[in-house]
Amino acid sequence: MKIALAQLNYIVSHFDYNKGLIIDAINKAKANKADLIVFSEMSVCGYMPHDLLEQHDFIVRCQNYITEIAQHCNGIAAIVGAPTINKSAKGKKLFNSACFISNGKIQEIRNKTLLPTYDIFDEYRYFEPNDKFEILEYNGTRIALTICEDLWDKQPIAYVQAKGQLYKNSPMEQLIKQKPDIIINIAASPFSYNQGKVRRQVLRENAIKYNLPLIYVNQVGGNTELIFDGDSKAINSKGEVVCQLPVFESDIQIIDTAKLNSTTPIPAVDEDNYIPRIHKALITGIKDYFTKMGFKTATLGLSGGIDSAVVVALAAEALGAENVRVLLMPSKYSSDHSVNDAVELAQNLGIKYDTVPIQPIVDSFELSLTKVFEGMEPDVTEENIQARVRGTLMMAMSNKYRNILFNTSNKSEAAVGYSTMYGDMNGAFSVLGDVYKTDVFKLARYINRNGEIIPENSIIKPPSAELRPNQKDSDSLPDYDLLDAILFQYIEQKMSESEIIEMGYNEAVVRKTLRLVNINEYKRFQTPPILRVSSKAFGFGRRMPLVAKY
Amino acid sequence: MKIALAQLNYIVSHFDYNKGLIIDAINKAKANKADLIVFSEMSVCGYMPHDLLEQHDFIVRCQNYITEIAQHCNGIAAIVGAPTINKSAKGKKLFNSACFISNGKIQEIRNKTLLPTYDIFDEYRYFEPNDKFEILEYNGTRIALTICEDLWDKQPIAYVQAKGQLYKNSPMEQLIKQKPDIIINIAASPFSYNQGKVRRQVLRENAIKYNLPLIYVNQVGGNTELIFDGDSKAINSKGEVVCQLPVFESDIQIIDTAKLNSTTPIPAVDEDNYIPRIHKALITGIKDYFTKMGFKTATLGLSGGIDSAVVVALAAEALGAENVRVLLMPSKYSSDHSVNDAVELAQNLGIKYDTVPIQPIVDSFELSLTKVFEGMEPDVTEENIQARVRGTLMMAMSNKYRNILFNTSNKSEAAVGYSTMYGDMNGAFSVLGDVYKTDVFKLARYINRNGEIIPENSIIKPPSAELRPNQKDSDSLPDYDLLDAILFQYIEQKMSESEIIEMGYNEAVVRKTLRLVNINEYKRFQTPPILRVSSKAFGFGRRMPLVAKY
Repeated sequence: MKIALAQLNYIVSHFDYNKGLIIDAINKAKANKADLIVFSEMSVCGYMPHDLLEQHDFIVRCQNYITEIAQHCNGIAAIVGAPTINKSAKGKKLFNSACFISNGKIQEIRNKTLLPTYDIFDEYRYFEPNDKFEILEYNGTRIALTICEDLWDKQPIAYVQAKGQLYKNSPMEQLIKQKPDIIINIAASPFSYNQGKVRRQVLRENAIKYNLPLIYVNQVGGNTELIFDGDSKAINSKGEVVCQLPVFESDIQIIDTAKLNSTTPIPAVDEDNYIPRIHKALITGIKDYFTKMGFKTATLGLSGGIDSAVVVALAAEALGAENVRVLLMPSKYSSDHSVNDAVELAQNLGIKYDTVPIQPIVDSFELSLTKVFEGMEPDVTEENIQARVRGTLMMAMSNKYRNILFNTSNKSEAAVGYSTMYGDMNGAFSVLGDVYKTDVFKLARYINRNGEIIPENSIIKPPSAELRPNQKDSDSLPDYDLLDAILFQYIEQKMSESEIIEMGYNEAVVRKTLRLVNINEYKRFQTPPILRVSSKAFGFGRRMPLVAKY
Repeated sequence: MKIALAQLNYIVSHFDYNKGLIIDAINKAKANKADLIVFSEMSVCGYMPHDLLEQHDFIVRCQNYITEIAQHCNGIAAIVGAPTINKSAKGKKLFNSACFISNGKIQEIRNKTLLPTYDIFDEYRYFEPNDKFEILEYNGTRIALTICEDLWDKQPIAYVQAKGQLYKNSPMEQLIKQKPDIIINIAASPFSYNQGKVRRQVLRENAIKYNLPLIYVNQVGGNTELIFDGDSKAINSKGEVVCQLPVFESDIQIIDTAKLNSTTPIPAVDEDNYIPRIHKALITGIKDYFTKMGFKTATLGLSGGIDSAVVVALAAEALGAENVRVLLMPSKYSSDHSVNDAVELAQNLGIKYDTVPIQPIVDSFELSLTKVFEGMEPDVTEENIQARVRGTLMMAMSNKYRNILFNTSNKSEAAVGYSTMYGDMNGAFSVLGDVYKTDVFKLARYINRNGEIIPENSIIKPPSAELRPNQKDSDSLPDYDLLDAILFQYIEQKMSESEIIEMGYNEAVVRKTLRLVNINEYKRFQTPPILRVSSKAFGFGRRMPLVAKY
């Protein structure tokens, strides 16, 4: 049987667009004599529509569009992901389903059993888990049709450091009893920089364990915080990857199931260096945010520092230098080299820049507040006014020129609250909010891999917010190498304070760092959406209480 | 048997504080000869700790504190809510449990079966559902011990307008087979203005259906967005409420199970007018935000309009007039009456106020941007600069005086995006973000019930943002009566566009309103936490995609 793997870039809830992509792919696959084409999980509506799933008309539209797509399936079968209605009188109203379509209509529906409800996943909020297992038969081939997490039954519990498995059931243990010939898995599995390796391992283990070929189709592209890398593949029953679709790109490839075991395996290409993967993910995330929202132009503030330098370089690469326009907003504390570095960067990239010194505006704030603040010493208030004047100028640029403001905070800053709400925390979305400062430096080096774009000086000078004379980040924070290592243990690895100290980190530094993370939850509550590139990003996937003591 | 109902106000993750409350209550109950004292769901740690539940040391602390509490249970038994570890090798690592303590230690644990995972609830994110049902026997009384949602098995599916029940199982149908003498339900059930009536009905139905007395214990107090009203009660087997704890107040009451059927029933006291309930909830939400975070003083901007007037009146009532300090920030578009109304209000409340005209600062922004905006017409940019200057001034007040900034946006504005990000959307938390504008007017009247606090003029004048000459809200928005009615159908009732039009609302107005709601999701993403008083508030309980087309 010839099977087409359709790795496409859907827009959430944009039914006409998604239908167009799907029908085009069906026609292409048919022209190439495929017997079956496989689309990813929830392909009709894109993953994840969140609470749109609670709207009646949304579900009706999913049904109508599937019906319309089905009319194009003659001479070819298709598997399309969609939410479908649970017709039982009890249980959640929807299933997360794979619709098997042939001869112009839906012939069979298979539902997802294991519903990820952790980190950024909320599937049990909407879906009833499947508890009926049945092989799908098509042209004499017996297909074990599964949906994403259904193959991750051995997934360990990701917290409370426990031994144990997250799920009680194993859909494949049920399906294997019915002697399938092949496993098909449709997925919506977002990127994180170490996910590709884990994913390949899980899929290969399934192929080997059940001694079956496995077809895996994932979606691609950025949907707000989540960036899908695709990484669709076919694996033979020996566990060898014999067809591999590119990451972060739409693609359709056709495999012949009869030839899977005789095809030369494709070696794994993971680099030890995860920076190029993060780079590609961020470019995808930026690009899709703009194209899917119908935006074209962007803006940000260039400080001469490393964070804004990396963001503007990524923005220029993703959107074109002609679509990025920046402001330099020096204050009386800005060093000459900061301004020079920013100008040099703008020139290297060929982007338009303007300079608006903030001191006159800051002065007018301070003058207006003289009476109210009479007799009080300068403190963080005045530092924040500077940051908020910049934030307001950037929003004025955004409003006037209808360009989208990038937030330039990094994950280390976001973690310890080293940023000003309604100031440098402004922005439609955050590019580096899931990238630690030490990785921002590595990204800068990577961006410069073919020649200097980001001025060397921006990379090597000590980081500073330049909100008071001779300020350095290291005045208030541990060195970033140490800080990031502690943050990684706490945030990604969910280690406790005592465990991190036991690992050998300085007790006072660990206590201070964790306390900063905890007391700044209120700032992160109001953060823009953050492009997720790690296994635990701030935002939707990390839900912490505000009014609490920890 | 004498049972004490302990309705207490816990602080999330503040173990020492919660332990203190619990042990005090045990001692009081013991002094009053109670045989058993019942605390609410997750009482040891407060509801809801969210992802703190994923931290190993958090769970260890829950265990340790329960052990310590248990040592105080001699001569009295206690039921305490806590997360406990699922010792099985498979499934989520935790249970949401009720610990039965007597003779100084935990004797039995019962786990929650029905795990709410909708709206603001995420319980399946953390907990494995219970599937073993066993009566608890104490002093010859057979107790059906259930946790909150366990009695809500008949709950209808709340969306996709479907007939049907959300849950497949019924814990009481299992437990009733074991012939219990009484039902005890420990809960963490947040307030919404129509919840009390529904809750009483569900509990009475259970008592009547199983012909058993029912003890219900809920927590009380505000935890960030969620406000718990307590409303604990005892119901006899005829379904009569025979003991009723006050709403929004900590309290302990003791009932004698032998006398339940002979006690005079307490009549229901729901007023048709829900405004006093919302008023009480908001006062609780404000008060607990401050006391639980250790804050004392607050600030906000007074515009002379109705929203800030209502917020400052609530703030003064909750925190004391001496702890509230406001700024008046008139612009060249501010009418004299706005300033006068604001001054009058501040004087009525006896709060300190200062006036900082914004025009000089606005001018300095516009002057600084002259070159960058050369040749471009004034537009919303300049309106937003005014709002952001005010937002920055308010944050300066907050920073300098360490007082907490109240956000004053209402639900209607938040819905249609009639507000400026990083301007009037600033604030630590939003008091009125779940109160429609038409209800804000009603709240103002209610606040004035014993004499004018809010100037009549602030209530009767047409609402205006005063960001350009003669601006009125009605220039851009439908009348609030109509707007709010449509918003209610869309947000709370989850009606679709076509269904709302079919109800008789003007098609163009419905389309415009729903479009405004949908395209402003990005603004609400960065909103401060909103005190929840309805069944569907913006924020945590309403999760919509940003990059999407709807």
